[in-house]
Amino acid sequence: MNETISPEWIAVDWGTTHLRAWAMQGGTAIAKARSDAGMAKLERDQFEQALLDLVNGWLGTGTTPVIACGMVGARQGWVEAPYKSVPCKPDQSAHAIAPCKDARLQVRVIPGLKQEKPADVMRGEETQIAGFLALNPDWDGVICLPGTHSKWVHISAGEVVSFQTFMTGEQFDLLAGSSVLRHSIDTSGWDKQAFEDALSDSISRPERLAANLFNLRARDLLSAQPKDIAHARLSGLLIGAELAAARPFWLGQQIAIVGATSLSQIYADALAVQGVPATVADGARMTLAGLQAAYRQTKETV
Amino acid sequence: MNETISPEWIAVDWGTTHLRAWAMQGGTAIAKARSDAGMAKLERDQFEQALLDLVNGWLGTGTTPVIACGMVGARQGWVEAPYKSVPCKPDQSAHAIAPCKDARLQVRVIPGLKQEKPADVMRGEETQIAGFLALNPDWDGVICLPGTHSKWVHISAGEVVSFQTFMTGEQFDLLAGSSVLRHSIDTSGWDKQAFEDALSDSISRPERLAANLFNLRARDLLSAQPKDIAHARLSGLLIGAELAAARPFWLGQQIAIVGATSLSQIYADALAVQGVPATVADGARMTLAGLQAAYRQTKETV
Repeated sequence: MNETISPEWIAVDWGTTHLRAWAMQGGTAIAKARSDAGMAKLERDQFEQALLDLVNGWLGTGTTPVIACGMVGARQGWVEAPYKSVPCKPDQSAHAIAPCKDARLQVRVIPGLKQEKPADVMRGEETQIAGFLALNPDWDGVICLPGTHSKWVHISAGEVVSFQTFMTGEQFDLLAGSSVLRHSIDTSGWDKQAFEDALSDSISRPERLAANLFNLRARDLLSAQPKDIAHARLSGLLIGAELAAARPFWLGQQIAIVGATSLSQIYADALAVQGVPATVADGARMTLAGLQAAYRQTKETV
Repeated sequence: MNETISPEWIAVDWGTTHLRAWAMQGGTAIAKARSDAGMAKLERDQFEQALLDLVNGWLGTGTTPVIACGMVGARQGWVEAPYKSVPCKPDQSAHAIAPCKDARLQVRVIPGLKQEKPADVMRGEETQIAGFLALNPDWDGVICLPGTHSKWVHISAGEVVSFQTFMTGEQFDLLAGSSVLRHSIDTSGWDKQAFEDALSDSISRPERLAANLFNLRARDLLSAQPKDIAHARLSGLLIGAELAAARPFWLGQQIAIVGATSLSQIYADALAVQGVPATVADGARMTLAGLQAAYRQTKETV
């Protein structure tokens, strides 16, 4: 870029493993940048420089407001933005202010949400939910946010009423990448029928998961089961177990899925097999809409 | 050791990550040795040297018979000892002969067992089962072999009738060591009540496993749950899910548990909570008894 960009504000999605920033003019992203300077890689005094490395070229002589969400607000992040308790609106304005040496930056961090019983937490997803509700006002129902730690979230009257987290994505990554199953799985392939069969096995007999997992290895050893089928079966087994446990969330509810496109489509297919239609919304777009809603709020309250 | 040892034969337990050898005089171990030269670390042409590194001092001028069990007989091991199909006796004599350059060695490898439907395999456990049955002739019931890949095995009239493998131990290792839960767990501590509570949660609602797992992280973040409690709860959740799926194996059956002492005791406690008594037998001792039974058989058939 040779052009000089001077955004009104900067939107930041700062997770465990990634840092994404958008240069914003009102509600329009005029530039974007990303790095792998995730929260897990940084000590507390390294966050400011990691952000400057990415957005320095966007800063003018005055102060540019920055709104950030995600693990940057965790206890081991840049500044702790303490969890708000549900039930509450996902776009509350109790932002934490990150300590900055560079006067060109003013960084606000959006708090996550917590639930006392059963104990549960989210950080980052609350901003996607706020974005979805900003774009879909008066929407009531359940939002599913599939990913490393999938969330199912009851929404009523603009508030997060309750939610539940499932370690489905992290289990998938560990089993496909680090367990004995890695020899029998090729995650570049897919087989829709195998996914649906495994999904059905797991929804009807979720307690058989640990046995069904080893079965993927045995089928490879005994009958050279194709590795794309094993991939789809592993996904079906784990998502089926999640759907079995999340049944109170999706049964008879209006469902929206917010996440990465390909994974969201897999969840939408899985719900369709149960006769449940679902709206799919792009996760990154919802994050940006949520950050924008938070920015608008700071303009109203400041 | 300065004394010269010249055993009649050598017993070998050769798994994915370890190699254990015993110098045997009849049924008595007169010396033992171990290394971490497991199957996973070795190319096919490196097995003989790995064995010689361990037992060279035990070899005389003649040929010493070696009986080995475990992953050494897998397709990617030293020599493939093709699976025998159940139902069958676990101590069949169809040993594979490993190719040796050193004439002082004659190495026989015990085959594993396979089951066509549902697809399942074992390698190494068949020798522990044979050892248990050699020490407990006419025993009928179910043998549980807890571990990385736990097995539940129906025994009738000296034969393995059917079996089922659960990835419980590998899931535990991945979750406690490599997932987000590693921050919340200390595997050096234990809490019996927490184990039993989680066991009960999982047996009654096994489909909630993926949610109950993340709950361990949330309890740490929200109420600083002690890490030994999280350890015991993780174990209870996973073993509870296994017991829920393995119910047809243990309900109303005579049970023996064969494995490492501390893990076997945890399984025995878990079964006791269900009102099921179980006999516990030491895994290493059963392996040695099984290798000895296999050696006796070669003497009869040669």
